[in-house]
Amino acid sequence: MVKVTQRRRVTRLSADGSLRERADTLAGEEPLEVRVGGRPLSVTMRTPGSDFDLAVGFLHGEGVVRGWDDVAQIDYRSGIGADGQRDYNVVDVTLAEGVAPPDPSLERHVYTSSSCGICGTSSIEAVRRTGEHDLRLDRVAHPLAQLLALPDRLRQEQKVFDRTGGVHAAALFLPGAGGLKPVCVREDVGRHNAVDKVVGWALRERGMPLPGAVLQVSGRASFELVQKAALAGVATLSAVSAPSALAVELGEDLGMTVIGFNRGSSLNVYCGRERVRS
Amino acid sequence: MVKVTQRRRVTRLSADGSLRERADTLAGEEPLEVRVGGRPLSVTMRTPGSDFDLAVGFLHGEGVVRGWDDVAQIDYRSGIGADGQRDYNVVDVTLAEGVAPPDPSLERHVYTSSSCGICGTSSIEAVRRTGEHDLRLDRVAHPLAQLLALPDRLRQEQKVFDRTGGVHAAALFLPGAGGLKPVCVREDVGRHNAVDKVVGWALRERGMPLPGAVLQVSGRASFELVQKAALAGVATLSAVSAPSALAVELGEDLGMTVIGFNRGSSLNVYCGRERVRS
Repeated sequence: MVKVTQRRRVTRLSADGSLRERADTLAGEEPLEVRVGGRPLSVTMRTPGSDFDLAVGFLHGEGVVRGWDDVAQIDYRSGIGADGQRDYNVVDVTLAEGVAPPDPSLERHVYTSSSCGICGTSSIEAVRRTGEHDLRLDRVAHPLAQLLALPDRLRQEQKVFDRTGGVHAAALFLPGAGGLKPVCVREDVGRHNAVDKVVGWALRERGMPLPGAVLQVSGRASFELVQKAALAGVATLSAVSAPSALAVELGEDLGMTVIGFNRGSSLNVYCGRERVRS
Repeated sequence: MVKVTQRRRVTRLSADGSLRERADTLAGEEPLEVRVGGRPLSVTMRTPGSDFDLAVGFLHGEGVVRGWDDVAQIDYRSGIGADGQRDYNVVDVTLAEGVAPPDPSLERHVYTSSSCGICGTSSIEAVRRTGEHDLRLDRVAHPLAQLLALPDRLRQEQKVFDRTGGVHAAALFLPGAGGLKPVCVREDVGRHNAVDKVVGWALRERGMPLPGAVLQVSGRASFELVQKAALAGVATLSAVSAPSALAVELGEDLGMTVIGFNRGSSLNVYCGRERVRS
């Protein structure tokens, strides 16, 4: 049931009239329900894998979990499929003693509560209130050549994409000897999920904030991705495609560096130019 | 406040050391709250424009609205910004007399309730129950050349993309004299929103099902997009990128044609080969 990829028969038809039947590998996509203290909080369609990190990263973005100590236990105990077998599509998170359970209002706007407000301004205010990390304290300056290398590094690490061409990816790069190193790369049919998986990993393995870090994503930079990066204490977000207007507005407001159209030979800096050393 | 695109200053840095400051056009992204009978149901980040169609298309996907007659009124009356002015970020939908309001459980899993179940199988069952249209009755067979032409036609109609490079698009093609014609093209930072905008338009202008129709999307074919097409009575979904495994499984189950990697010179047919005439 729970598969990262699946094989299917496909017919390839070309304009020149050729027709070829072959087996193709498709990205897995299955629902994952996240429960906190036994209560269902959200369902998301995701590519199976790193489910615990996805759940914790999602809860971090929602402001429920602030550090790894806030989590007492994570398991798959509730998921029972139609056949009576465990199906690994429900993750149960037990919060540590004293950690407040999710605001019941979260249950309404799941997935969109992280974009939270009714207007852009109020959303930005909401992030300011919940964000613990002052990103302006991150005074790193990355050499341009290192930033331009990130999309290729991300692509090299994308295992599922190579086979399916159908998933988004997010990678956390941290400064190391000789430059930025990928420390966590995750893929998913949903780009927010890929970022949540990375954030969950970082929360578990590194703690936050993450000074000098860059989050590289395979697609666009939306408002929510900027917000997720900010909440994780990551000051630089680099995207292969365009950012939205609100994403740049939020990034600027939080003292972040937002890079778009990073295509290897050139990139656009929308705000936070001081972290790019050219 | 509500803008489809915004101008921003951007710094373009190249590997050869060149640096250029210029104005760039970014895709607008703002939250839209949908209220039904005065009750908030969902908040989504969207590119402003076609908001009423987005709201109605979303409600159609959720099974709340089945036809245009189910809607008594749509307006922006509740949206008041921080400055006390109407902000056009809240759409109020008033259902016609006798139309059941949304299941309160929908309020929990907004955005993900359309993928609904806990496991793939139960999701598929849920669609079967709510889908009114037997797509197997759509016995159209599209010439391959016409299907291969769709991505280019979609791109030609993408007004925002040309300027921003940052939005997804969905287009409804219907059979006309000389072949498939684009009757509705919509763009959005969210690909589900682009499809909801098209579905809302179709509900209002054409009714459903839509025999002979093809829904062309600019990105991947996810489970949810297949489901939205099926609920709208559209038998053929064509995507520029890959479908997920579950998207193909659902499409096959519902008698749909799912096309992926439609790149102009060739395409892959994952199921429903009988609607492609090569």
